[in-house]
Amino acid sequence: MASTAASASPPPAGWASDPGVSAPLRHVRAIIADHLTHGPTDPTLAQRRAWRDALYDAIALPPDVVSTPVRDGAVRGLWQSSPGARHDHVLLYIHGGGYEIGSVRSWRVISAVLARRMGVRAFSVDYPLAPEAHFPAPVDNVVAAYRWLLAQGIGAHDIVFAGDSSGGGLTAAALLQLRMLGLPEPAGALLISPWLDLTNSGKSIDDPPGYDPFNPRAGLESFAHDYLAGHPATDPLASPLFGDLHGLPPLLIQVGGDEALLDDSVRFARRAGSEQVAVTMQVWPHMFHEFQAWAPDLPAASAAMDDAATFLDRALADAR
Amino acid sequence: MASTAASASPPPAGWASDPGVSAPLRHVRAIIADHLTHGPTDPTLAQRRAWRDALYDAIALPPDVVSTPVRDGAVRGLWQSSPGARHDHVLLYIHGGGYEIGSVRSWRVISAVLARRMGVRAFSVDYPLAPEAHFPAPVDNVVAAYRWLLAQGIGAHDIVFAGDSSGGGLTAAALLQLRMLGLPEPAGALLISPWLDLTNSGKSIDDPPGYDPFNPRAGLESFAHDYLAGHPATDPLASPLFGDLHGLPPLLIQVGGDEALLDDSVRFARRAGSEQVAVTMQVWPHMFHEFQAWAPDLPAASAAMDDAATFLDRALADAR
Repeated sequence: MASTAASASPPPAGWASDPGVSAPLRHVRAIIADHLTHGPTDPTLAQRRAWRDALYDAIALPPDVVSTPVRDGAVRGLWQSSPGARHDHVLLYIHGGGYEIGSVRSWRVISAVLARRMGVRAFSVDYPLAPEAHFPAPVDNVVAAYRWLLAQGIGAHDIVFAGDSSGGGLTAAALLQLRMLGLPEPAGALLISPWLDLTNSGKSIDDPPGYDPFNPRAGLESFAHDYLAGHPATDPLASPLFGDLHGLPPLLIQVGGDEALLDDSVRFARRAGSEQVAVTMQVWPHMFHEFQAWAPDLPAASAAMDDAATFLDRALADAR
Repeated sequence: MASTAASASPPPAGWASDPGVSAPLRHVRAIIADHLTHGPTDPTLAQRRAWRDALYDAIALPPDVVSTPVRDGAVRGLWQSSPGARHDHVLLYIHGGGYEIGSVRSWRVISAVLARRMGVRAFSVDYPLAPEAHFPAPVDNVVAAYRWLLAQGIGAHDIVFAGDSSGGGLTAAALLQLRMLGLPEPAGALLISPWLDLTNSGKSIDDPPGYDPFNPRAGLESFAHDYLAGHPATDPLASPLFGDLHGLPPLLIQVGGDEALLDDSVRFARRAGSEQVAVTMQVWPHMFHEFQAWAPDLPAASAAMDDAATFLDRALADAR
């Protein structure tokens, strides 16, 4: 299934020029619409990966961010640092892309800008993707990266996690796996537009509140199929929505008001809250999947990043 | 029904001494448990009202808060002001109590402490209660208080609303009514443990995640019966969960992780978010209905008030 699905349909007429939303949002929508309209036909997996990464290449990183690739045993990733970043606190970032596409490059703006606003370093994990790898390899890889940080003398209470989309699901899965392994939890976590239910039972998938360019049902099902490779989608390490969430650290969930995955966020917030996790959910009007990547262009994205930095800063302070 | 229902059952053994929660929370739980255990038997309505108010009498107001009763035509209420409070911004506060009990006195700590942290004045509305009054009199009364503030030259964008429990529902109802009347919306609103569905269809009512001393189903049904006096509970001005929420100002919803009304918050956040309202929901672990009243004694309550003040401050700044 990997080669055909998960390329979204072109946006409806008027989406990019909707006078009901702000000029900066129309501008970003126009970029996305142009991208979707000019995708490769019948792309290979490599083409799909390159195509997704290319969407975000237009977004400028702050010029003072220094990126350093890491390869240390099984741990691969990217350090991102800005001048003055403290070295004893780390944002462990887990990118999205349906466990099949995406890279530390695609969402480098989110990890770099967030870490920069927090005044810490980001380590973005370069975990193996489907169909070359399968569940639970990415979960194990994130846990390995966390252990690697701990082995460098960084305390669990000096680390926060963040991830977008499938990376948000992977963030929650890693927190569950840490608890099962008896490892200390990090100080807190940010879930950006998280995909938390690989059975895709959220009502908003078939009835999104707005147009969602990135998560048609066929795409989500293809991603889940290729990642799970026959493993049950209800396993909490694949779908943290079905996990026992007691004992998780404070969570901030950010989701766009137009998203197909809105109900993943709502249901997870409900479950985490009822299992006595300190959880905050923000729904951002008219926003789309992973809008935070556009922080340099979009005031709402920048405001969301500010809120995320404030939340994670406080989680670090409270954990000490 | 008014005279017998809505007095909660005594707490389960071990609730007040649960070692799984903080010492300050155990202290406050002990006060609540003692109060519930020593309620009047077969109380009159007046006794029930006095009993509820008495629970909160033990909480100290900041000593510098000046309270000034107001009676101006149909508008009654209480100004609360602390030294240095600016007079051009107002927190319009709407107390809870199931539309039948409660008063500007019961939750005076919430309104006063919140306004004090914001550096503004609070006006707490003293609206008529059931069974003497019925739906929609309280909604009309809140709107009248808002018009009264506007008539004093205070701008809509310089006013925020806040309310707890039924007062949270009334807050949302008033926002809907303002839109229907073509009046400008305030800059934002805070809903504390809001009761937003008078059909009481939330699953958490019969299966609360923790012990909820204040909202047994029988009590909620009695309150709804007496307030509605035969009017349909599905009217959005009685149950804003069923309203069209487009165009509402930014909302912060705070709810305790133990609450029977958790699903009112979750469902309202979902609906508001999908109708492109900027909505934030916080679930506070192990917290109970209207825990914010205990801000002087309970660190989580104080932190919630800080977050609420920050949110409302920003709403005021963004609305200008």
